[in-house]
Amino acid sequence: MAFEYLTNVPLKQAQEEYIQLLLQNGFAAKTEMVAVQQACGRITAQPVYAHICAPHYAASAMDGVAIVAKDSFGATETTPVILQPEQFIVLDTGDPIPEGYDAVIMVEDLVKNPDESITIHEAAVPWQHIRQIGEDVCAGEMILGAHIEVTPAAIGAMIAAGVLEIEVIKRPVVGIIPTGDEIVQPCTDPKQGDILEFNSSIFSAMLRQWGADPIIYPIVPDQFEQIKQALEQAVDACDMVILNAGSSAGREDFSAKVIEEVGQVLYHGIAMKPGKPAILGCQGAKAILGVPGYPVSGIIVIEELLKPLIACWLQHGTERVQTATAKLTRPVVSSLKYQEFVRVRLGYVGDELMASPLSRGSGVVSSLVKADGILEVPQGVEGYEASSLVEVKLLSSVEKLKNTLVMIGSHDPLLDEIANLMHLEDASLYMSSAHVGSMGGIMAIRRGEAHAAGCHLLDTETGEYNIAFIKKYFPKGGVKLVRCVGRQQGMMLQKGNPLGIEKFTDITKPGVRYVNRQKGSGTRILSDYLCKQQGVEPKDVYGYEREELTHTSVAAQIANGSADAGMGIYSAAKLYDLDFVPICIEEYALLISDKAWETPMMQRLLATLKSKNFQEKITAMGGYILDRPGELIEIGQ
Amino acid sequence: MAFEYLTNVPLKQAQEEYIQLLLQNGFAAKTEMVAVQQACGRITAQPVYAHICAPHYAASAMDGVAIVAKDSFGATETTPVILQPEQFIVLDTGDPIPEGYDAVIMVEDLVKNPDESITIHEAAVPWQHIRQIGEDVCAGEMILGAHIEVTPAAIGAMIAAGVLEIEVIKRPVVGIIPTGDEIVQPCTDPKQGDILEFNSSIFSAMLRQWGADPIIYPIVPDQFEQIKQALEQAVDACDMVILNAGSSAGREDFSAKVIEEVGQVLYHGIAMKPGKPAILGCQGAKAILGVPGYPVSGIIVIEELLKPLIACWLQHGTERVQTATAKLTRPVVSSLKYQEFVRVRLGYVGDELMASPLSRGSGVVSSLVKADGILEVPQGVEGYEASSLVEVKLLSSVEKLKNTLVMIGSHDPLLDEIANLMHLEDASLYMSSAHVGSMGGIMAIRRGEAHAAGCHLLDTETGEYNIAFIKKYFPKGGVKLVRCVGRQQGMMLQKGNPLGIEKFTDITKPGVRYVNRQKGSGTRILSDYLCKQQGVEPKDVYGYEREELTHTSVAAQIANGSADAGMGIYSAAKLYDLDFVPICIEEYALLISDKAWETPMMQRLLATLKSKNFQEKITAMGGYILDRPGELIEIGQ
Repeated sequence: MAFEYLTNVPLKQAQEEYIQLLLQNGFAAKTEMVAVQQACGRITAQPVYAHICAPHYAASAMDGVAIVAKDSFGATETTPVILQPEQFIVLDTGDPIPEGYDAVIMVEDLVKNPDESITIHEAAVPWQHIRQIGEDVCAGEMILGAHIEVTPAAIGAMIAAGVLEIEVIKRPVVGIIPTGDEIVQPCTDPKQGDILEFNSSIFSAMLRQWGADPIIYPIVPDQFEQIKQALEQAVDACDMVILNAGSSAGREDFSAKVIEEVGQVLYHGIAMKPGKPAILGCQGAKAILGVPGYPVSGIIVIEELLKPLIACWLQHGTERVQTATAKLTRPVVSSLKYQEFVRVRLGYVGDELMASPLSRGSGVVSSLVKADGILEVPQGVEGYEASSLVEVKLLSSVEKLKNTLVMIGSHDPLLDEIANLMHLEDASLYMSSAHVGSMGGIMAIRRGEAHAAGCHLLDTETGEYNIAFIKKYFPKGGVKLVRCVGRQQGMMLQKGNPLGIEKFTDITKPGVRYVNRQKGSGTRILSDYLCKQQGVEPKDVYGYEREELTHTSVAAQIANGSADAGMGIYSAAKLYDLDFVPICIEEYALLISDKAWETPMMQRLLATLKSKNFQEKITAMGGYILDRPGELIEIGQ
Repeated sequence: MAFEYLTNVPLKQAQEEYIQLLLQNGFAAKTEMVAVQQACGRITAQPVYAHICAPHYAASAMDGVAIVAKDSFGATETTPVILQPEQFIVLDTGDPIPEGYDAVIMVEDLVKNPDESITIHEAAVPWQHIRQIGEDVCAGEMILGAHIEVTPAAIGAMIAAGVLEIEVIKRPVVGIIPTGDEIVQPCTDPKQGDILEFNSSIFSAMLRQWGADPIIYPIVPDQFEQIKQALEQAVDACDMVILNAGSSAGREDFSAKVIEEVGQVLYHGIAMKPGKPAILGCQGAKAILGVPGYPVSGIIVIEELLKPLIACWLQHGTERVQTATAKLTRPVVSSLKYQEFVRVRLGYVGDELMASPLSRGSGVVSSLVKADGILEVPQGVEGYEASSLVEVKLLSSVEKLKNTLVMIGSHDPLLDEIANLMHLEDASLYMSSAHVGSMGGIMAIRRGEAHAAGCHLLDTETGEYNIAFIKKYFPKGGVKLVRCVGRQQGMMLQKGNPLGIEKFTDITKPGVRYVNRQKGSGTRILSDYLCKQQGVEPKDVYGYEREELTHTSVAAQIANGSADAGMGIYSAAKLYDLDFVPICIEEYALLISDKAWETPMMQRLLATLKSKNFQEKITAMGGYILDRPGELIEIGQ
């Protein structure tokens, strides 16, 4: 069977053939009747015509009297006409015009006589000051065409026209079947080897945003018959089905075979990355999409292959995605074989939109939380060089991006707290931060990729922090250095210090598994310095090559028992309730690009550093020394 | 009491003081716990921290074997190491690393020996090919800050991090109290004088779009005590209350007094139009907004005065409204006393965005259905001249506007049917049409305000349609004329023709009430011509000055018994089941600007005219003759 072998069909071709196949099989929207009040945002299935006129009766447009216009003919300033009480009726704005009457005289245009009659000095034009029947909409007129989204004002116009129920396009029902022996329902204390089933929750939220009704089915183990039964049931009940996981060609790949038994497989394997093992299947007009288990792959597959089907069903016009031109901060290497989707973080530095590629691991869902855009590298393109101008699909609005402070550099959990405080103080401001170590931060500022960078680089010659590095990398200036905090650095150890580690040199002890930070981070430079200073040979330290990117992840390895010691800051040790051997206090400062200095967001950042809220938060986290945060540090010549 | 007199406070000042007063009184969002799966689109109330690491266990990143890295030390190409079965465990990608093991050798990097042992040729680096704990997110890390909107990807990241429930900002509950003796629930057959209560339905839909939870209370008659009781009840149950209607200073104005008794009134009367009689009130931190009864006034009042409160509650950053610069097609005259909100229809003609002011009647809700934008004329500005460049707030996207065919000219219900067919054939295309008569259409094309115009202008000298007018008004060309339909014009009469009207001259008969079309419409030119030709003096025709803007509204007046006869097309008479005396067949053609000729939407329009669907629709409507619709008409020199 051909589908057992992955195809490598170009995405665009797959999209087009898939929708063509479904349309040939009769793919079409269902419709339903809904109360007009519930129709906001829904799409009309048929044109809506006014049932009655609005207004549905002739009404006075003024406060005054209703008369028969003829009775007033001939009235002028010099030949006034007197109307007897039986010839007029007093009414207010909005009152219906009584049968037989056909004009309104405004109260200010008439004289009331003592005998209850009135005098008028100008003939009325028939139908003057009368709000005509159908002024707003006439019975039989089309209020909305077919396939038009219902707005609040349209709801008002329809009710005014006596239309209480309309035929709209039914939301397509999309079944989601999670499969896999190791998959478990979301919980707070999963066992070793359990994989929390969160894909369905992501997919459901996306589907609702696109106007579909998701149904999540129970998790099915990797058993052919059980998956087949679940799929048959879902295909019966739904308009489209997502079969999640098991779509790669590996040993647990039942998906393609199951889909082939229940319906047919158009393609198994698309020239896209992530998402290559996707399966495009159907049973008649019902789409069955086999989606890889890795969350990022799954998200991109349903975005590219299911969303167009839903848009077609809902008769949405082709929604153009917002894009922008951005400058790549680092090269992107891509395979010629696939169309690749690379998540990027975006930031306006000056007037230039800079795009920094994020982790490409398809299991890293947090990278999608951080992503502001997607860069598509077409099939047949090898990638782009750094500084290339590329077109990116925006996930955040340009306005939000313009108000986002981009911080790239040394990691500290306090950056998230600063971001939170800034945003609480001004809801229009955001901060995005990436952890690439102090040297990475310096480079990011040099490349114009970031507004600010946390750094704590020890000049091992002078024992001074940061200044030597800034002089070296910014010989012409262009940056400012701002005080942030003093941080307690030390050795994080397992709770209770079972291996009796007392000082740095103990990391060479037999049985001690060290976990290190990545090269270029300030903490790694400190470890390397301590090794040199105290005569420790890195090759004698078990795990010295094991690199983690943040203090927190070093702490997490120790807390979870996969390492015994690592350098890091006190607040991370405290967070994980680890033992801690203090080693030194270091200056953690913020390097700020002059280009960003005057922006409202930078000024807000500086204000936040000086705020009482910040001081309280930092004190609660532990291990920090506050020494005039927010003040400039003199760099000198 | 001061509030009995309308104030005229500038809108901006009123907005600022209102929110300040409420904040002083303790206005603040409530929060609630929700399941993470239900949190998409909600706003976090507190930062969300990871509860567990994701992944929460070290897992193999490859298919292969788990070993203790130390056991492999020293292995090279020339000095391979052999591991006995008890020294390794076979595992697949994703499997947990068993206790005590700390490296994975890929299956392709090892040799299986016949005795079940394996041989490796390269030492393992501790933790190689292992997906570390917390690679995605570490326990204790901030996943989302406070006051951040939850996205589908964030839902995934939270579940992966063991967070199943989060604290979000509660949607504010907004009570809506409709008041008025004449107000009735929506129905399909209202009695004379009944006003259908559709404001609440419009407001509810808007409130839901803004993230609030609306509650509609029963209609309350204009009785002080009843309104007061209803308001007290709503203020108790809700976070904000809209008291609808009765907010003008007229005789039924209880609203301000009621609000004053239940709480306090900050302002009664805002310098805005429509919406002037709005009442800004509160009880403590609960806003009570008195909203005028006319729908357009009410919509603008809640948009300007309630929406900012909801945004403040929900901690949205100041959402910047999309605006665009447009050229006014007609002058806008505004009062110096008020900030005025003028609905406009927008259209791209060539590259220029043209804005045409729509009806300013605050009762005309259909004008809001047609509006693409709002022009704000500041207080103190008298208005703008035609051709001024103005900034408009967009209600439709630029993309939709660029795909909207703007048709301004003679009315015919078939235009709505054409619009519907075009959109069904290509969901990205729209048509907006305005009924200003044939001459109005010619002028709109001349001013560059429209792409096309329906026209049927009889040259009374030659008996020919349209061509003479086009030669006159477009002496240098720049337009094309396209066949559309032949239309049956005639006299529309009450069903059964009770007054025995047989021919045009019968409209002068005593007791016959005529209803006319507006000057400049082709039908009016025809009536005037018939008068002249047949010796009818307009002043002898009762109601000749009574002008309606469409065939349908002429038919509606006759059908509703407020007129006896009027000129119009057969399809309108048929729609209202009226009697009809045929008079002539006229050529209804489309005048098309050369600037728009080559656009996809115009080509689609021409294709639609030639389509079978169009022919079928037109035949069903009755009174049309199809004569090669969509073909060019030679204009000549």
